[in-house]
Amino acid sequence: MHILITGAAGMIGRKLTARLVAEGGLAGQAITRLSLIDIVAAEKPVGFAGACESQAADLSAPGAAMAAIKARPDVIFHLAAIVSGEAEADFDKGYRVNLDGTRLLLEAVRTIGAPYRPRLVFTSSIAVFGAPFPDPIPDDFFTTPLTSYGTQKAIDELLLADYSRRGFLDGIGIRLPTICIRPGAPNKAASGFFSGILREPLAGREAILPVEDSVRHWHASPRAAVGFLLHGATIDLAPLGTRRNLTMPGLCASVGEQIAALRRVAGEAAVKLIRRSPDPAIAAIVAGWPQRFDAARAEALGFTAEKSFDEIIRVYLEDDFKS
Amino acid sequence: MHILITGAAGMIGRKLTARLVAEGGLAGQAITRLSLIDIVAAEKPVGFAGACESQAADLSAPGAAMAAIKARPDVIFHLAAIVSGEAEADFDKGYRVNLDGTRLLLEAVRTIGAPYRPRLVFTSSIAVFGAPFPDPIPDDFFTTPLTSYGTQKAIDELLLADYSRRGFLDGIGIRLPTICIRPGAPNKAASGFFSGILREPLAGREAILPVEDSVRHWHASPRAAVGFLLHGATIDLAPLGTRRNLTMPGLCASVGEQIAALRRVAGEAAVKLIRRSPDPAIAAIVAGWPQRFDAARAEALGFTAEKSFDEIIRVYLEDDFKS
Repeated sequence: MHILITGAAGMIGRKLTARLVAEGGLAGQAITRLSLIDIVAAEKPVGFAGACESQAADLSAPGAAMAAIKARPDVIFHLAAIVSGEAEADFDKGYRVNLDGTRLLLEAVRTIGAPYRPRLVFTSSIAVFGAPFPDPIPDDFFTTPLTSYGTQKAIDELLLADYSRRGFLDGIGIRLPTICIRPGAPNKAASGFFSGILREPLAGREAILPVEDSVRHWHASPRAAVGFLLHGATIDLAPLGTRRNLTMPGLCASVGEQIAALRRVAGEAAVKLIRRSPDPAIAAIVAGWPQRFDAARAEALGFTAEKSFDEIIRVYLEDDFKS
Repeated sequence: MHILITGAAGMIGRKLTARLVAEGGLAGQAITRLSLIDIVAAEKPVGFAGACESQAADLSAPGAAMAAIKARPDVIFHLAAIVSGEAEADFDKGYRVNLDGTRLLLEAVRTIGAPYRPRLVFTSSIAVFGAPFPDPIPDDFFTTPLTSYGTQKAIDELLLADYSRRGFLDGIGIRLPTICIRPGAPNKAASGFFSGILREPLAGREAILPVEDSVRHWHASPRAAVGFLLHGATIDLAPLGTRRNLTMPGLCASVGEQIAALRRVAGEAAVKLIRRSPDPAIAAIVAGWPQRFDAARAEALGFTAEKSFDEIIRVYLEDDFKS
């Protein structure tokens, strides 16, 4: 089995690559070839027995999408994207990478044509939704994004569904929750504090909390996210019918519940490292974000996420914590 | 005021042009210039006092969209589209005209830039929805189209909302019901019989009914459709917030109710001209179509449609019937 990962150098891409290499197979078939693409070349995994190539490429550049799939990978994990903040700041770049790049990839698959019909697992986002929301947000709620990034992901979802319906590929769109705890250094994303208030105190460092403890959001760990992608690459998609895009399960938790979990796992000393510094700008952005979903469709298909923040913290300590 | 109509040679485009000319103004301002564009040049209206140009152009061709708006029309009615059957039969043409053509038009507006920020009234369709449905279909129901045409319209809606949110234009998407009674000759559209079983008997000609009398669908007259477009061009769009696409009001009626209205308006002799000839292929297509909407948002904004099929038939007799 030949697997292609776009956006392979990103956080989820690296974890997905490592997991595929560790498991050595997918859906009962050995992985014989692994193709990694990103705007900067991803590190090749160590200990992989099959063929592996890693390329720096921009899928929105002429010919790049066709070059990426000319060896006809059986499974394509399409993770490559400009993140929300950058897509909002650079309108052209966001549409070029997030819309045109995805469309060109789908078009390349269609151009090769039958009998080539790969499984395509696309990472979408809960950013396809925009406030105001019902609570919980049902699976049939409309997509009225409040960012260009969310718009581009919602358009990609529509394309994925149509290309699947027409039989050009066998696609599934995975709407990821906010990923928590993100490893690595603090970043400037408005959502950064959700991870920061756990990751930094666990390492003995201070973290800023810019919102009220009552703020709720929808979370899943990086490990759960990789699990969604693998499950989406493996299951029979016929039960989805033409509705190919799924909100993933997650954990609805308040900041206060996050902190209580930190206290249970790491003690009061860790909690004392959280410094409250209200930021009305961040509070306003976060107020427009979804808080809770009823992910009944995905759950019925066997997608699973963490059930408590204690579990999310333990996953971080096992997978990413370096003491 | 300068008004541009794309798709001006189509049935709705011609009626919209005639109505604008008859009224002479829009939102209290005199219409001084009228620009008509279609793939074939639309007939220029008679009796229009202002400047009028009619051009044959394909908005998806390089430079065509910018040429269409370089004179900075105040209001753009964007009606141009490949119809559902053709978009399904010719995948490339459907995406080129219905997606790329619309995107290029929005991009041309953005390229001119502030302070230019026209009102853009876009004709979308209930084809953005796909079965299975709740009854009625609420305003916040998700768009899971079952045709490439519906996919392209749903993508255009997302673009329209994002370009509006970013301040590049002031857009509204009008999801038209099935238009009934369509004037002119019978066509091969699967929906053709909804109009045919009324229009043909009214003219003393036989009409084929390929489905059961119990089949329900969502209708509005051509006059109501033009009314939606004019209302959408006139009202303050601030109450829409970022949710710029609206399902229009319509009339949910069964074929049996259509026939009963024909009997009341034109008598039993007309009804006898309807010949039942069940067509399982058409019945299967129609079974996937929406039947009833709760168009509460549009109604609250003052959009109105017919309340009975008697009224729809009378509108046809007044506007289109040639004895």
